[in-house]
This record gives sequence, structure tokens and C-alpha cells, in this order.
Amino acid sequence: MAELVLRATMAKNRQCVSMRLILLLSCIDKPGLVSRLSSFIYEHGGNIHSLDEYVDIADDRFFIRVEWGVEAERVSLSDLSKKFAPLAREINAEWVLRDKGKKLRAAIFVSRYDHCLREILWRYEAGELAIEIPLIISNHNDLSYIADQHSIPFHVFAMTHETKPKQEKKELELLSSHNIDVIILARYMQVLSAEFVGHYCRQIINIHHSFLPAFIGGNPYKQAHERGVKIIGATSHYVTTDLDEGPIIEQDIARISHRETRQDLIRKGRYVERLVLARAIEAHCNHRVLVSGSKTIVFN
Amino acid sequence: MAELVLRATMAKNRQCVSMRLILLLSCIDKPGLVSRLSSFIYEHGGNIHSLDEYVDIADDRFFIRVEWGVEAERVSLSDLSKKFAPLAREINAEWVLRDKGKKLRAAIFVSRYDHCLREILWRYEAGELAIEIPLIISNHNDLSYIADQHSIPFHVFAMTHETKPKQEKKELELLSSHNIDVIILARYMQVLSAEFVGHYCRQIINIHHSFLPAFIGGNPYKQAHERGVKIIGATSHYVTTDLDEGPIIEQDIARISHRETRQDLIRKGRYVERLVLARAIEAHCNHRVLVSGSKTIVFN
Amino acid sequence: MAELVLRATMAKNRQCVSMRLILLLSCIDKPGLVSRLSSFIYEHGGNIHSLDEYVDIADDRFFIRVEWGVEAERVSLSDLSKKFAPLAREINAEWVLRDKGKKLRAAIFVSRYDHCLREILWRYEAGELAIEIPLIISNHNDLSYIADQHSIPFHVFAMTHETKPKQEKKELELLSSHNIDVIILARYMQVLSAEFVGHYCRQIINIHHSFLPAFIGGNPYKQAHERGVKIIGATSHYVTTDLDEGPIIEQDIARISHRETRQDLIRKGRYVERLVLARAIEAHCNHRVLVSGSKTIVFN
Amino acid sequence: MAELVLRATMAKNRQCVSMRLILLLSCIDKPGLVSRLSSFIYEHGGNIHSLDEYVDIADDRFFIRVEWGVEAERVSLSDLSKKFAPLAREINAEWVLRDKGKKLRAAIFVSRYDHCLREILWRYEAGELAIEIPLIISNHNDLSYIADQHSIPFHVFAMTHETKPKQEKKELELLSSHNIDVIILARYMQVLSAEFVGHYCRQIINIHHSFLPAFIGGNPYKQAHERGVKIIGATSHYVTTDLDEGPIIEQDIARISHRETRQDLIRKGRYVERLVLARAIEAHCNHRVLVSGSKTIVFN
Repeated sequence: MAELVLRATMAKNRQCVSMRLILLLSCIDKPGLVSRLSSFIYEHGGNIHSLDEYVDIADDRFFIRVEWGVEAERVSLSDLSKKFAPLAREINAEWVLRDKGKKLRAAIFVSRYDHCLREILWRYEAGELAIEIPLIISNHNDLSYIADQHSIPFHVFAMTHETKPKQEKKELELLSSHNIDVIILARYMQVLSAEFVGHYCRQIINIHHSFLPAFIGGNPYKQAHERGVKIIGATSHYVTTDLDEGPIIEQDIARISHRETRQDLIRKGRYVERLVLARAIEAHCNHRVLVSGSKTIVFN
Repeated sequence: MAELVLRATMAKNRQCVSMRLILLLSCIDKPGLVSRLSSFIYEHGGNIHSLDEYVDIADDRFFIRVEWGVEAERVSLSDLSKKFAPLAREINAEWVLRDKGKKLRAAIFVSRYDHCLREILWRYEAGELAIEIPLIISNHNDLSYIADQHSIPFHVFAMTHETKPKQEKKELELLSSHNIDVIILARYMQVLSAEFVGHYCRQIINIHHSFLPAFIGGNPYKQAHERGVKIIGATSHYVTTDLDEGPIIEQDIARISHRETRQDLIRKGRYVERLVLARAIEAHCNHRVLVSGSKTIVFN
Repeated sequence: MAELVLRATMAKNRQCVSMRLILLLSCIDKPGLVSRLSSFIYEHGGNIHSLDEYVDIADDRFFIRVEWGVEAERVSLSDLSKKFAPLAREINAEWVLRDKGKKLRAAIFVSRYDHCLREILWRYEAGELAIEIPLIISNHNDLSYIADQHSIPFHVFAMTHETKPKQEKKELELLSSHNIDVIILARYMQVLSAEFVGHYCRQIINIHHSFLPAFIGGNPYKQAHERGVKIIGATSHYVTTDLDEGPIIEQDIARISHRETRQDLIRKGRYVERLVLARAIEAHCNHRVLVSGSKTIVFN
Repeated sequence: MAELVLRATMAKNRQCVSMRLILLLSCIDKPGLVSRLSSFIYEHGGNIHSLDEYVDIADDRFFIRVEWGVEAERVSLSDLSKKFAPLAREINAEWVLRDKGKKLRAAIFVSRYDHCLREILWRYEAGELAIEIPLIISNHNDLSYIADQHSIPFHVFAMTHETKPKQEKKELELLSSHNIDVIILARYMQVLSAEFVGHYCRQIINIHHSFLPAFIGGNPYKQAHERGVKIIGATSHYVTTDLDEGPIIEQDIARISHRETRQDLIRKGRYVERLVLARAIEAHCNHRVLVSGSKTIVFN
């Protein structure tokens, strides 16, 4: 009996110091990959909680997400990364290994629309998003009061055609000084330069207020209203140098009718936008997204 | 007591010979329109069962659908039409007046895909669609066996660039000889000529296998697969001389994931296509659709 | 030319002082009702913008919602109501006549969950809900800080079995003193007494966190998780004396999978709850809902 | 060059004789399971195409589905099963190993409603369902003509309270003689006896025409109409001895409005029923479903 209690206590203690790790990896497919990866995990004291694997037959490419638990005193993330590197090199893999407990650091970019920002902050405060938000950046001052309500520093970088290169440089310095992992464009109404995008490859998430590739570019609700569609949508995607052409992470729609004016579309669209962006952030920050060319693999 | 029974019997008898009428009308908006129309109906013995009205404020245009019952011995459709004409002229209206009990006569056009045809025939036989189908037309013989199963005449008009004008002329004669009211393109893989379309203005319903205006033209599932969208769709619209640009009647979507191949998209898309086309036919044939420029008003 | 300018100016002025009215009415069906109602409107200077009518054939009951514009200097709401009363009496109607520009006064009841409250306040501040919120009532103090952020008075009425009758009485006095039109239970975790409900018949809107009638009562997410359903839902309904049995205004759902824990269901459910409650409030406050026995008629 | 051509030819030939295997397995969770299973597959010449794994933390239970390719000349299914058995015993697993190319043999049970039967046969003939249908069983003769159209034997077993035990015995013999793997109740209006169900544990799929657990039992559309719900649904589940209580495989819904009569609900419900049942069959027959107590794990 005493032994049982002791064991339970040990189990409990063990649990307390356990670490959750997530591996995202892709490489050319070949036999034995799952075996090698899962054996590596087992040999390093891990117990797999969740594993998703997908082979793109057409491209002959292997994608995997593994989440496992390990006793934190037995191993550190950097140790494990070092030990994993040779195997990864051998199979020529793109990979990241993450401590699930370590939240991504996100910078939010906004302009004048508040709905996406509010949705993110709301979920953030409810503890639903695995992120930290050390700062909000805007090209206007309008939404600084919301940042104040949440005690998050708000930085304004006014943009003109002339000042853009200089301002973006300053932004990059600020982002770098805060160790930002991911940039969320929450209806940010400025196009980022190719150079800026290059610094955060596949780390910038945008929300476009249409069902891409329909209504690319400006004023999609106006376009949708004029075309008389019966459904509107929103699309969240990684930003690349081609506007609205980056890999799509998430999309959703809302039904509309002839009664709805353009203003109604804008209003209804807001709820689709904030839902779709929130889901994309959730997927990215829980390390569920892999990019394959112009597409994404999103593991549930 | 006897009187009550008598009245109930009369009511019942009345019901037996009652006729249901539907008016679809649009004109420039002005005060008093509903009053004049509903008074006309009341004065001609009608009892309104359902009335939907919509004013497009931006275009200053009035749209209405009224469905009412009337004792059949008191009035005929043609009489009522004649009596209604002066009022319609006065308000400069576009209108149709229909006997709900008289089903539209539909011709189905198909090529080689059977799914939309099957869905239509299925609902037709289940008594769900207010249509008669006196004939099916195709540019190939492949699906004639389905027509045979349902005992519906199947006419093949092979099409080449050269024979098209002559063949369409024959089709028009055939359609005319069968008093066809509406043409349903159930994945018909031929573009109709402007002349052909002109004969059935707003009477030709097409199903396009994408969420228009995304992926206009050929191979939309291939385009969708390559773009990596997370949702596919289908669109049913009236055919105009601009390909895939006609007024949209109905749209719907299905979620897809990275796991889905192009073949999976085609397979999943089939169910969206047949659902969307069936709903559009239902709306059209129950006289629930009004066209306003490049858009539709669809009353529920 | 001068005359044209003058007319345009007059039209503009007329518009500036126009009033929008909404009539919600139900009575036993009989011929001529639409004609009489629309003629009344026309004769009193109105131009109908939108009319929805529905006859419940089984119950032989007529329901209508009409929205029209009228020049404000020509008529007042109370005048018009007086003039309309004899007609309404004659057809034995239940009816309300509203000035669309006059927002309903809503009291929000909350306990400890903030998500529904936040959604309402958010839409309220974005000008999307046609309501005024003069006060928030709670049985706990937890959410008072949110009320403070929005500068809305927050009243706490602690409830025990013993104090309930006295506390409800005070609440009723407070509500009455603020001329409250509608009470919104935004996850209020107290059952209202029959007496309280009686004071606000069909004026209390609740959100239940399940797809009614599934999972009536407490802990629906626990029930749903244990049953292994693949879809969860939320239901907004008018409060009657039968718990969770009132007329349903709106419902919606979210898909879930085996991966989702009870906590995930609660989290996902929050978004369905706030969406469904917001839509129900919108429908009620735009005077789109009529009650017929245990059901609602919701005009779009 | 010649060597390259030779290799490509060999690769192609290899492909031609490759076999796809699917393992479904569950056991108590412990470290190293994925490693052991994937190593087994690799050591027996397999290349994993798809792997889904899920650990139910609360129940401490491990679930996995693996799909892999192997050269058919190197191994047979029965050999591999024998070799796998000791490992499975050691981890105390429930498991099945399947040749993906070998379709399940399904018996369809119907009564008088044709819509689910038609949907299944349609998808079956389009090659979308990985099943063979050697026979259809009914308690009525009504739908035999559909079986005839598809050249599938149709067996009638009339049922009364008295004859049921005898008739079910005959059915079981017939099913057994056809090596039936799965029974699909396509709106079969008879309750199967506990004994019958016992012969096909987790191999009988039913469609219930409501969103379970709402509206359990008979006449769910009547119940739904009376309750005034805004959404109707359908549920596909494994049949257990508790009516409508078996593990749910799939659910979906359709929106309805006050305008819809009970007949409309029945009509709209048909499309939900056939969609939900078809999806459940697809999941089951592609070996994507594991049962855990009263719930299912459905891997996408």
C-alpha cells in the first residue's frame, strides 16, 4: 500500500517536470522514416501523444508532426536538437523542434479596423492562444486605446511612399529586439516590402477579406456585392512577395442574400475574418502547419 | 348546427376547386404599390398565402412575389392576366402571373457526367420538383441508358465547330415543339451560341463547378488543387452570353484538406454541384427568382 | 432648372425628417388582410420598404412584418397607433408598432462567464445592435471591470435560495425605473422565478449551451463529451417558466472530433454561444421575431 | 542509360504488384508503441503512406491507423498477420490488419424509403465506396425494382412479432453464406434483436433521422416540427442493443425556418440522411473508425 502511494507520488512528481516537445519535419519520402523518427523519440525517453503523417504521393514528399512527452530532467531542448541534427541531415529534412510550453512571441500589425485585433486579444486573455504579445505595431494611432486597455505597448510607424524603407527598417529592429517569432497582420492596410517579408519567411500571417482567389486586391466586398454572390468568405494565408498569393492556411464563408447591402457584407464579413484569422493563428502557433510549395499541410 | 356542417362542407368543396396563383413583378418603386397589388388580388377573390417584397434602395426598384388562392370557378388565369395588364402597364412593370399547379416544362442538357442528371431525375420522381421533363438532350450518347430507365426521350445532337449552328437550330425547333419553359444544363460541356441563349433569356440554368468568380473557365478543380484552397464550391446561375458571368442563383461549398487529391476534389465537388443545381432549379421552378441586372433576388 | 434644384432640395429635406416604422402583427387569417394593412399605410403617407408575410395553414394564422417610411412632420407614432387601433381590434390582432429609430433598452444579466457579454458590448459599440444598454446586472462581482471599461453601470444582486424573492423584487424595480424593454441572459447562471418571467413575457432572451432539445439542463458539454457526438451547438430562446423549453429564436453548431476534450468543447462552444446569442438579439431588436405558441416566426 | 531504363521498368513493375495494407489497433498506452509498430512495418518491407495516432489521455488508451505499401510477392496478408500476432499479444492489443484492395462485403437492409438505398447504390456504381454489395434484404417488397435495376439480389423477410426470431435466423444464415462483413441499415424500420446484433458487433451501421441525442425514437421530424427547432440533423451510428445509443460515427445538419412544414422537414432531412450515412459507410469501409467504449475515433 505504502509502495502504491509512493509510486503515485512519483508519477505525479514526474508529471510536474515533464516537457512536451513538437517536431515538424518534411523530406523526400522513403521507407523507414516513421520507424527511425519514433525510435529516436523512444530512445530519448519520449512517449508519443500524437502523431500525424502525410505523404504527398505526387511530389514524393513526407510530412510529419509528432508531439511527445519527456521527463524534463532527462533532457533539454537544445541537447535533443543537437542529437537529432545528424539524423535530420541524413534524410535531408527541413525541421523544427519546439518546446510546447514555450509560447511563440507574436507582433500584431493593425491599421484602423479593430475587429481582428479585438478577437485576438480576447482569445489571448482567455488563455486560448499559445502566444505572447509583447507589442502591437500600426501605421495609425487610432487603436492605441485598445492596446492601453490590455497594457500592451503600441508603436506607430507612419508610412508614406518615401518613408517606407526607413520605417520598415526601424520596425525590423524593434521586432528583432523583442525576439518576435510571428507577425500577425490583423487587417494591416499596408503592403510589406519584399525585403521585409524576406526576414520573416512563412512567419507572417495575413487575413484577406475574400474567399481567395476570388476578389483579389482591394475592395472585395464591393466586388462581391456587384457580382451578386450568395456567399462571402475570408482567407488567412502566409505572406509572400506576391500579394494575396501566399499559401492558404484557413478559409471560411458566410451566406448572404439579395437583401444585404455592401455595408451588411462588410459587417457580416468581419465575423468571418476574425474567426478565420484566429483559427490560422491557433494552427500556426500550435505548430500544426507545414508549407509545401504554394500550399499548406494543416494537421488537426 | 346543420348550417355549420354545411359551411364546413362548402369550405371543403371550395378548397377542392381552388387555384394557387403566383405573381412575380418588378418596377420602379413608389408609394402604394403593395396596396394596389393586394387590393387587386382581394377584389378578384384572392386570399394571400405568402408575400415577399423587397425594395432595392440604391436602384429605387421594387420587387415582389405574391402567392394566393382563389376559387377556380370564379376566374381563369388568362382572364386574370387580362384584367391585371392595365395596372401593370400603368406602373411600367415586368411581370409574370403563373398557375402554381401548372408545372414548368424542363429540358435537361447533359454530356457525359451523370451525377447532376441523376439528382434531378431522382427528385423529379420523388415529386419534389415542380417540373415536367419531356426530353433530355445530349451531345453524346453515353447517358441514354439513364433516360431509358426513367422512360424519358433522349435526343443526341453531336456537335462540331462546323455543325453547331445547324444542330442548335434543330434543338431550338425540338424545344419549341415541346413548349419548353426552362433549360437545365446538368454539366453540359458545350458553350451555347449567343443566338441560342437569346431564345431562352433567363430560362437557362447552368451549374459551374467552382465558387464563382473564383476559377472561371475550364478545369476548376485542377486550379483549386494547385492553389491549395481549403474550401471548394459550386455555383448555379442563369446563362448569358458572357461565359460564367450570368446572375448567380445559388452557391455552396465543401471543406477540403491537404490530403485531398484532385480526384478527391472532383468526387467531393460532385455532391456540391448536384445539391446547388437542385436548389437553383427548385427556386426557379417555384417562381422564387427575379433578375435585377447582373444579380438575382431569391425569395425563400 | 431652378425648379429641379428646388425639388431635389425638398426631396432631401423630406428624407432628413422621414421616420421608419415597423409593424409586427398576427391574427386569424382571412382574405384581404394585406390589402387592408397596406392601404392603411398608403393612406397615412407611408411607402413600404420591406414586407414579409406568412400564413400558418395548419393553425390558420396570419403573421406580418412591415417596414415603411413616412414624413415625420405628417404623423407621430402615437397618433398613428391610435388611428390603427380600430382596424387592429376589428381583426382581433396582436400587434406592436415601433419607430425603427428608437432603440430598445436592454438589460444584460451575467454571472461569471464573460464571452457573451463581451460579444454583445463589442457589437454594441460597433453600432451593430439597435439597442441601448443602460445597465448590467449580475449575481457576482467578477465582471464589473468589463462594465467599467465600457462605462455601463453594473449592479450586483447576490442570490441565495432565501434572498431570491427579495432580490428579484429589487431587480424588477431597477429594471422598471430604467424602462427596460428586453432582458438578455448572457450566460446568467440563475433560474428566474415564474413571477419575474411573468413581468417580461417574451422579452427575456437566453442562450443555452447546447443544441436543444439535446442536453437540456446542466453541464451540456460534459453530456456531449460523454455521448461522443460529432457536433455541438447552442440555442437562443425566449425564457418561459419551463426551463430550456421556451420558443427557439436561433441555433447553430460546430463540428468536433474525438480529439477534443471536454475543455475543447467548452472553448469551441463559446464561439457558437456568442454568435447565436448575438444573432437572436439582432433579430429581436430589429423586430423580426413573432411568437406563435411554442415556436417563433423569424423574418429575415 | 540502359541501367536507368531497366531500373525505371523494375520500379514500375514493382508498383504493379504492390499491396496496400491497413492496420487498425488500440491498446493501453505506453512509451515506444509507434516505434515498435513502425519498425515492424519497415522490417517487413513496408513503406508507410499514412499514419494517424491518438492517445486518449483520460483513458490512457492508444489508437492507431497505419496504411502502408509492400511488394506483394514478398509477403501475404495471412503471413504478415501471423508474424504480427506475437507483438499484438504482448501489448494486449485489439487489432485488425486489412488488405486495402479487398473490399468489404456489405448487405443493405431497407424497408420502404428509397433515398438512402439510392445514394449508396449510386456511389457504389460510381466506384466511390470500397464495398461489394452481394445482396439487399428487406421486410417489404416495395424496393425490389431498384435492386433489379442494379442487378443485385433482393431478399424479402416479412416480419411479425411471432416470426421475427425465425426470420432473423434465416437472415443470419444468408448473411453468413455470403461472407458479409458489414450490415447497412438504410432506413430499415425494424429493431434488430439483441441476438442478431451480437453476431455483427460494431459491424452494423444505422442512420437515425435526427441529431442524436435529440429526438430519440420514432417520428423525429414530427417532434422537431412541434418543438420549433431552427436546425434538423441526422446521425449515423453503430447499432448496439440500446436503441439509438450506439457509438456515433457521423452527424450533420440542415437549417430550417418557420415556413417549413413537417413534410418539408422530411424532404430536407432526406438529403442530410443520405449524406451522413454515405460518409459513415465511407469511413467504416476505408477502415477509419475505431470504437472506444460508447464513442468512436474517426481518422480523416
